[in-house]
Order: sequence, then structure tokens, then C-alpha cells
Amino acid sequence: MKFNPVIEHLKTYEPGKPIELVVREFGIDPADIVKLASNENPFGCSPKAAEAVRRSADRMFRYPDDTMGELKCALSERFGVEPSNLIIGAGSDQVIELACRAKLYGGASILQSEITFAMYQIYAAQCGASVIKAPGVAHDLDAMYRLYREHSPEIIFVCAPNNPTGDCLDRVDIENFIDAIDRDTLVVLDGAYQEYAAYKSPVKGVDPAALIAKYPHLLYLGTFSKAYGLGGMRVGYGIAREEIVQGLYKLRPPFNVTTLSLVAAKTALEDEAFVRMTLAECFGQMEAYEAFAADLGIGVIESYTNFITYLLDGIADSTELCDALLRRGIIVRDLKGYGINAMRITIGKAEENRRFFEAMRQLLEGGQQ
Amino acid sequence: MKFNPVIEHLKTYEPGKPIELVVREFGIDPADIVKLASNENPFGCSPKAAEAVRRSADRMFRYPDDTMGELKCALSERFGVEPSNLIIGAGSDQVIELACRAKLYGGASILQSEITFAMYQIYAAQCGASVIKAPGVAHDLDAMYRLYREHSPEIIFVCAPNNPTGDCLDRVDIENFIDAIDRDTLVVLDGAYQEYAAYKSPVKGVDPAALIAKYPHLLYLGTFSKAYGLGGMRVGYGIAREEIVQGLYKLRPPFNVTTLSLVAAKTALEDEAFVRMTLAECFGQMEAYEAFAADLGIGVIESYTNFITYLLDGIADSTELCDALLRRGIIVRDLKGYGINAMRITIGKAEENRRFFEAMRQLLEGGQQ
Repeated sequence: MKFNPVIEHLKTYEPGKPIELVVREFGIDPADIVKLASNENPFGCSPKAAEAVRRSADRMFRYPDDTMGELKCALSERFGVEPSNLIIGAGSDQVIELACRAKLYGGASILQSEITFAMYQIYAAQCGASVIKAPGVAHDLDAMYRLYREHSPEIIFVCAPNNPTGDCLDRVDIENFIDAIDRDTLVVLDGAYQEYAAYKSPVKGVDPAALIAKYPHLLYLGTFSKAYGLGGMRVGYGIAREEIVQGLYKLRPPFNVTTLSLVAAKTALEDEAFVRMTLAECFGQMEAYEAFAADLGIGVIESYTNFITYLLDGIADSTELCDALLRRGIIVRDLKGYGINAMRITIGKAEENRRFFEAMRQLLEGGQQ
Repeated sequence: MKFNPVIEHLKTYEPGKPIELVVREFGIDPADIVKLASNENPFGCSPKAAEAVRRSADRMFRYPDDTMGELKCALSERFGVEPSNLIIGAGSDQVIELACRAKLYGGASILQSEITFAMYQIYAAQCGASVIKAPGVAHDLDAMYRLYREHSPEIIFVCAPNNPTGDCLDRVDIENFIDAIDRDTLVVLDGAYQEYAAYKSPVKGVDPAALIAKYPHLLYLGTFSKAYGLGGMRVGYGIAREEIVQGLYKLRPPFNVTTLSLVAAKTALEDEAFVRMTLAECFGQMEAYEAFAADLGIGVIESYTNFITYLLDGIADSTELCDALLRRGIIVRDLKGYGINAMRITIGKAEENRRFFEAMRQLLEGGQQ
């Protein structure tokens, strides 16, 4: 069977190992597994969202309200934008996919930082586009601007805070960069971890309403998968001028967000206390990760997210270390595939983090790896 | 902002009006609305599936198991195929989309019956493909074969039973048709309503395992949205040879089915008693629809699904009638957009059907429309 030649060389995204797989592969009791690999919220989601889902379980037979009126209304109030400025996707992932399919055709290209969210280039490759990367572990906006002038890409992806490194550009630098880009190039600002950045530093948080008021070529992305603790329910959103939203809507599959996901997201958005607790706990626990790294001479990237990146040069091989942790039931993310000898650890609950530190000490100080 | 010119002329799918919209537009109490528009299961879903979802609500923060190992295992046992013969989508809709994107590029075309599931041509158009239609209200396989020889389409869609008409080809005719098609043309056999057809008539049910054993160019589609009552959770599947599954997998977005959808589908699949009750009730109530139509001189298409099509020539204008029903809080589907003066009614519970018959009598015999 012949397929579109574009798909022949495609790589598929490798997600963090799910607990189910580690149970199957290593025969470890699920209760003993500590998963710090997918930047999930260790506190789960808002108990109110879980309760709303339990109450709505009998409505699973109904197709979702495809206008998503209630969730759009709640998001438009939260961000001070019109519902027509919103597109809701099965995760912000799907909005990335729609943006790629809307803009990339016939020899197109995208521009991104070298080490950033893997799905940009995966969706771009599906559209047959080429991928231009600005070198460096952090976003180098000067280099990105030079490459933009040289290659005229159709889409530029800016991830702030950046995944999988955790660092974050300042708002003013992001704005200056967007401002310098011509208005027919789509700038996608991925704010999946913006709640964390805005909490930690006033110079990192962006205001999507203000940005789209100024910039007709901006698409802001947000998600319910991180601070709102709904990674399993696949709800994200794009905020942009109507022209962009309408373009993406043409490619949106109907019923792309489930009935229970809509209920969960709307209820989660109302529970600000849960999000505040999440953010406070995250950065409280992150201090333990920084102290542990300093103690063992491990380099870290300052993080504005719910994860931290340990730089392992001179300490260990990241792949070997991640494998050794996995055999102890601790799942973290090896970043070797991104071209750096490092690992990304989701900030967990105190007890999960303690298990991680304990295993790391055994492995690095006990000479067992 | 410039977009791919392909998307400029795209039409979007118009779903059945959700209850929320009718509440907003007409100010009708939600409790008084009878929705018979989207072929949902009026009995909801398996109570065991709802209970499993309630028990799993606290796991919404975890990304789904992207291997979908448990659901694949259950489906592979049910159908007698290997897990590698399965791809699970956000509804069978998503499998249709993946098939289009995998096969359609550079001046491709699809072949389908004139009146059939709307998403085939919508996804094909997104890929820039042209759509060839065999005329007729029912699938005319002879006409389809002639058009196949004439146009060499990349994909042929066969919907059995057919939506939105309800009729169903015989298994033997489907097999002979597939057999006559060359092995590089993908034949998509959409079995979204197969549970109903197989229950009603032994000559209509197909066996996906036997079909893919014989035909390397066949992709069978099934769904949890209809007999299993999980339309809101977006779970469907494709069954095909590994070569096809692997091709489609390259384009599958990661985490395309939610954590709770996987739980719901797996549990629903185990509850055969619920599905048997659903099928028995559906065809029991359908007799009332047939009797009502005969009484009022309305033509019907014999249905092998959970809906029935009323042919309204000489009776009423379908659009006006559907609008008049809507103002009474009864939502059905006007088929005018498909080119026939007809309406499709989902078989509901006895009380819902009684409300429909009552309103129809008022409108058609009271001369109020």
C-alpha cells in the first residue's frame, strides 16, 4: 500500500513511560512507582473538578457540546478576550497541529529553538515542512531573528517557559521579538507553563489579551494539563485574533474535546485555590531539588515550571542514570535525545521527591551505576 | 494572514444541535428537551463503565497510557486480531482523518456514495482531494465500481450500515466489491453501526478478522459512540493489516484518547448484557416508528441502525418540519443538506418516542406547520 511519501520518514513522539509499562516491563508494584517524567501535577486536579466529573459520568453517551460555549465563556472571562478569539483543542498539542496544517504547505518551514517541545517539529514534518533550529540550550532570540530573516519561515515557535529545559524568556524580550516579525509569519507563543512562570517572577508572565491586541500574527497557547492537573483529559486552547482562529477552525475535527473533559476544565478553571496551592508547593519543593543538586555538584537550569533539569556532564551518563532509576521504579525523562547529557525531573510531592533523592544518592555515591 | 489555499473553501461539519444550544436559543427547560438527533444511545452507557469512570476520576492528572495496551488487548480478544492490527482514535472519525492524510496528496480523489457520512468528504477536502460520488440514496456498488475504474480513487468509503439513511449492504456484496478493487486502493469499511446490523440480520454482519485476513487493502472502522453509548468520550478504532496500521500511526497525535475514555471503553466492552439490552430495545421501539409512519403515509427506509429515516415527499418540507419540532423542544436531523427531503430520527426511549409522535401528529394533522 502506497502512502504519502512525506510520512515515510516521520518519527513518532516518545512520551514519558507510563506507569502501566513499567509495571509490565519490570514487574514493580504500581504503588512503588514514582512517576516524575511527564510534568503532571503531583497533587492531581482540583477535587471540585473530580467531583463534577463523577456527577457527570452518566452523560458520557451525549456528544460534547461542540460550540464549547461554557468553557469558552469561562476562558474569555479569565483572559479578557472574546470567545471568538479562542480555539479549544485536545491539548494545546492539537492547536499546534492545526496551526501547522493551516500554514505549512509547498516547501514551507518552521523556526524554533534547538531544544524545545518535540511536537513542533513532528507536526511540521507531517506537513512536509523543513525545520530550522536556532542553536543553544536556551532560546537565543538574536539567533532566531537572524534565521528568520534568512529563511522566512511560515511559523516561529517560542516556548516560554521552555520545555524541556525550564528556563523562561522575559516578557519584554518576547514582545520585542514578536514586534520585529512581519505580520504574515505566525508566531506561536507556547505558554503551557505560564502559570508557573507568572507565579515565580513578575517579569516572566505574559498577558495574552494585550499581546493579541497588539499583534495580529500571534497565537498564544495554554493548557489544562499542567497547573490545572488535567493532563489525561486533553484540553488546551489557543488565543489569537479572529482571523487566525477561523483559519484553524476550518481544520478542527468536530467533537475534539470529550464531554467529561469540558466539565473538568470548566470546573478546574474556577478553583483558583487549588492552582495557588499547586504553585506554592511546586516552588517550595523545587528548593529541595536545587539544594540536592548543589550538594552533589550537579548543575541545574533555573526553572520557571513544574520540573527541573539536571545537567549531568562530569556526573553521569544521563541515559544510564535514567535506566538505573527506572529499575528502582523511578521514572524521569532522559534528555539525551535532545542532544544534552541531562535529565528532566517533574517536581513531585515531598515523599516522591525524597524517594528520588535517596535513589540518586545510592546510584551516584554508592558507585552502583 | 495567508493560509494554505486548500482550507479557504472548506465547509465545517454541522453536528446535531446540542441540548445546551436549544436551551439558549429557545429558552426551553433542559428537562423538556428530547434529543433524537445524534444517534446517541438513549440508555446512556453501561452502568459499569460509568462506575469505573467515577472510580478513576482522581487519575485525570495522569497522561493516558499512550500504548493503550489494555483497551487494545480487550479489542484484540473481541475481534480475534492482533493488537498490531488495531489503531485507536478519538472516535472512528479520527481514523478516517488519518487515513485521508496518509493516502491523499497531490491531486488524489476519494469515492463514496452520494448520501453517506459527511466526514469522509470533509477530511478529503482538507487534504485537497476531490470527491467522486456514486448517485443514489443507497450504496450502488455497480455504479461505485464503474466510477472506481474510471477515476482510480486513492480511497473508497463504504458505510455499512449507511449513515444517515440506515440501510445496509449484504456482507457478501461488500466482500465481492472489496475483492474487485486493486490492492493499492484503500477500502474503508465504516462499521459504526455494525452491532445493530448484525443483531437484526445474519446477512448484514461482517467479521473484520476474516476480512483483513483476505484483503490487505481493507480498513475496518468501529466505534464506542453508538451501541456502547460513549459518544461523548470519543473512542473508535480501525482494524487492518499491520502495514496500514503502521502508516496511520505515523500521523496519530500522541495521547489522542483521554485517560477516562480508555477506562470507559474497556469497561463498556466487557458489559455485553448492556449492549444486548440496547439492541433489543432499539428494534422494539423501531416498530413503533414504522407503525407511526405507515399510519401517516410517511415513507421509511428499512433501518439496520439506531435511527430511522422518514421520507417526507408529499408530506412536508423536511427543514420546516424539523424547525417546528425544534421549537417544541424535539431535536431531529434534517437531511435536506444531503439532497433529500427527509429527516433522520434517533430511536429514543419509549417516552421520548411518544413525545416525538405526539408533536408530529400535532404538526402534520393539526396543520400547524
